[in-house]
Amino acid sequence: MIYLDNAATTQRKPQCVIDAVVEAMNTMGNGGRGAHGTALKASRAVYDTRRKIAELFGCTRPDHVIFTSNSTEALNIAIRGLLNPGDHVISTDLEHNSVLRPLYYMEEHHGVALDFVPANKQGLVDYADFEKLIRPETKAIVCTHASNLTGEILDLHKIGAIAKAHDLLLIVDASQTGGCVHIDMKEMNIAVLCFTGHKGLYGPQGTGGLCIREGVDIRPFKVGGSGIHSYSKVQPPEYPTRLEAGTLNSHGIMGLSAALDFLAETGVQTIADYEHKLMMTFYNGVVDLPGVTIYGDFSEGHTRTAVVTLNIHDYDSSAVSDELAEYFDIATRPGAHCAPRMHYALGTQEQGAVRFSFSWFTTEEEVDAAIAAVKEIAEG
Amino acid sequence: MIYLDNAATTQRKPQCVIDAVVEAMNTMGNGGRGAHGTALKASRAVYDTRRKIAELFGCTRPDHVIFTSNSTEALNIAIRGLLNPGDHVISTDLEHNSVLRPLYYMEEHHGVALDFVPANKQGLVDYADFEKLIRPETKAIVCTHASNLTGEILDLHKIGAIAKAHDLLLIVDASQTGGCVHIDMKEMNIAVLCFTGHKGLYGPQGTGGLCIREGVDIRPFKVGGSGIHSYSKVQPPEYPTRLEAGTLNSHGIMGLSAALDFLAETGVQTIADYEHKLMMTFYNGVVDLPGVTIYGDFSEGHTRTAVVTLNIHDYDSSAVSDELAEYFDIATRPGAHCAPRMHYALGTQEQGAVRFSFSWFTTEEEVDAAIAAVKEIAEG
Repeated sequence: MIYLDNAATTQRKPQCVIDAVVEAMNTMGNGGRGAHGTALKASRAVYDTRRKIAELFGCTRPDHVIFTSNSTEALNIAIRGLLNPGDHVISTDLEHNSVLRPLYYMEEHHGVALDFVPANKQGLVDYADFEKLIRPETKAIVCTHASNLTGEILDLHKIGAIAKAHDLLLIVDASQTGGCVHIDMKEMNIAVLCFTGHKGLYGPQGTGGLCIREGVDIRPFKVGGSGIHSYSKVQPPEYPTRLEAGTLNSHGIMGLSAALDFLAETGVQTIADYEHKLMMTFYNGVVDLPGVTIYGDFSEGHTRTAVVTLNIHDYDSSAVSDELAEYFDIATRPGAHCAPRMHYALGTQEQGAVRFSFSWFTTEEEVDAAIAAVKEIAEG
Repeated sequence: MIYLDNAATTQRKPQCVIDAVVEAMNTMGNGGRGAHGTALKASRAVYDTRRKIAELFGCTRPDHVIFTSNSTEALNIAIRGLLNPGDHVISTDLEHNSVLRPLYYMEEHHGVALDFVPANKQGLVDYADFEKLIRPETKAIVCTHASNLTGEILDLHKIGAIAKAHDLLLIVDASQTGGCVHIDMKEMNIAVLCFTGHKGLYGPQGTGGLCIREGVDIRPFKVGGSGIHSYSKVQPPEYPTRLEAGTLNSHGIMGLSAALDFLAETGVQTIADYEHKLMMTFYNGVVDLPGVTIYGDFSEGHTRTAVVTLNIHDYDSSAVSDELAEYFDIATRPGAHCAPRMHYALGTQEQGAVRFSFSWFTTEEEVDAAIAAVKEIAEG
């Protein structure tokens, strides 16, 4: 199987990640529940992982790193825990349903008004539109760091500067960029950064979280056992406990911790460069094929994640992806990718599109095989 | 380390569970995201785990088994997704904060009225009290299957019959009993059963969920990517998607799946009998020691989980637990155990209590060592 669906989940994990999960499953107790050796070990190891995440993303306080089961949960916590009736929010057409549906929920149930910065037919935004949409009631900009459909990266330095100038909270979905694109909450003026563990961070599924800037107060989402302040009727107010109820996925977090070591040793930029090279090889190999339409901007100097999304003639994207899987043993992702507004922008809402996404563990031979497969289908 | 904190998390997992997680981390894609081999494999394996959970707990529909990161999340989903302003709920003094805090939240923010069946000084309830508390507005009984503090098992046949007679929803927290006590949603008239994967089920941390009786409609809690109906602004209405947003912890779920096989092969009753024998050995070894107070009912025929909770003289429970850890290398759990009402019932709110909890992997030698340690502390 040639696995080119790394934007959904990085299937191949560094061996150290698997080893760390095994070690945790063999030895760990329940962090924050009890003071014996194994519980303390769990508790310290989890804290150490918060520290590593804080360091990677430029979060000033490790205790403001909250663990969740995925970035969707993190986005629900941030969006539903910060917005109030009457607030106005600016988002974009690039968003995944993990951003859109919590926003629509707040619109329908809690009187939050929404506006979306439009994407053009290439899936690109005009940054001036963010400022144009600001109103007195605007509370936040909620946006992805990169489109999961086209790989288009939004310039968070620019958006962060706008947020700062207008005193808006910038809430970022880093699902597609954590681990493969430089992120610094301070430089980018990010109030809340939501991340997932199982994609570019190369950690286990069931991990993710949010990093919160000091002074940003998010209401609890889940409430329950906290291991501290057991006699209080409400969730304790301190981060991270305020937003973490019940037993954490410490086994998964230990895998994430090892993954963060792997990233630090390998280098986010080194990984990004390698993936970018693979992406350009693939792009150049298929761009001129008859009937192949590629979405997004691949021009020199334009920043993007290692994703090439395309269609072949007017073939249904699911049929193409099935053919790639069945006849060429290549895993891709077709259809809507949970990104409805972006498909409308690209005009692909009926056809969907086939996404090829690369990772540190993808080889050049695999990319060559994928080019050959697309060629065969296109010319077939 | 002699690990006697299995009611917090079973530290030792069957080897097949660890092997299954490793296998998943080496081979799995993202279930429900794409139709290539690894994604389909993930999707099928997750469904198969739903089927095993449904079978274990007597849930009629595998697609009504929802995965969450822990039982706290499951309880938040059930309590906050079923109750409405004006509803009255009956709960008990035995509850963990994972039940209490979501209920208090509904009381404070959504006009839900609460009543609690009191526990006596032994931590026992009078089942007649459930009926006495019923009012015309009573919508549900929300209760634990067993106290995490004393091990007292509530008779769900009795409570379920009351719920059925008065047309109430019975929502059960099975955190302490799943895998070590017989549970059947049909026999017990349970509307929603909330479980955790990492305790008596012997699965990984980061797993858990809820089983929902057909016809019980729970509002979505988290919303986001669902892999289906991507163009809908709201979470799709079908279970399990309605309550599962974002990428599942498939790696953990594969471990849980193997754990369910282990349970089926070993037998829930066989495990319960073995743990009960260890518990009685420990109980009999410490009950007559000077200054030892044991909480709960250990009389013949009384049903309980394999937990012995005690205090020694008027020693602070944390000091005793620390001494057990430091000088005897025995892991226990002191303090409040997130069970504030039960501590008030027992009169242990200041002292806390030291909980010894046993598992299938606990040996008789370990129990003997624990008895000797308690003896030494009590007589020291």
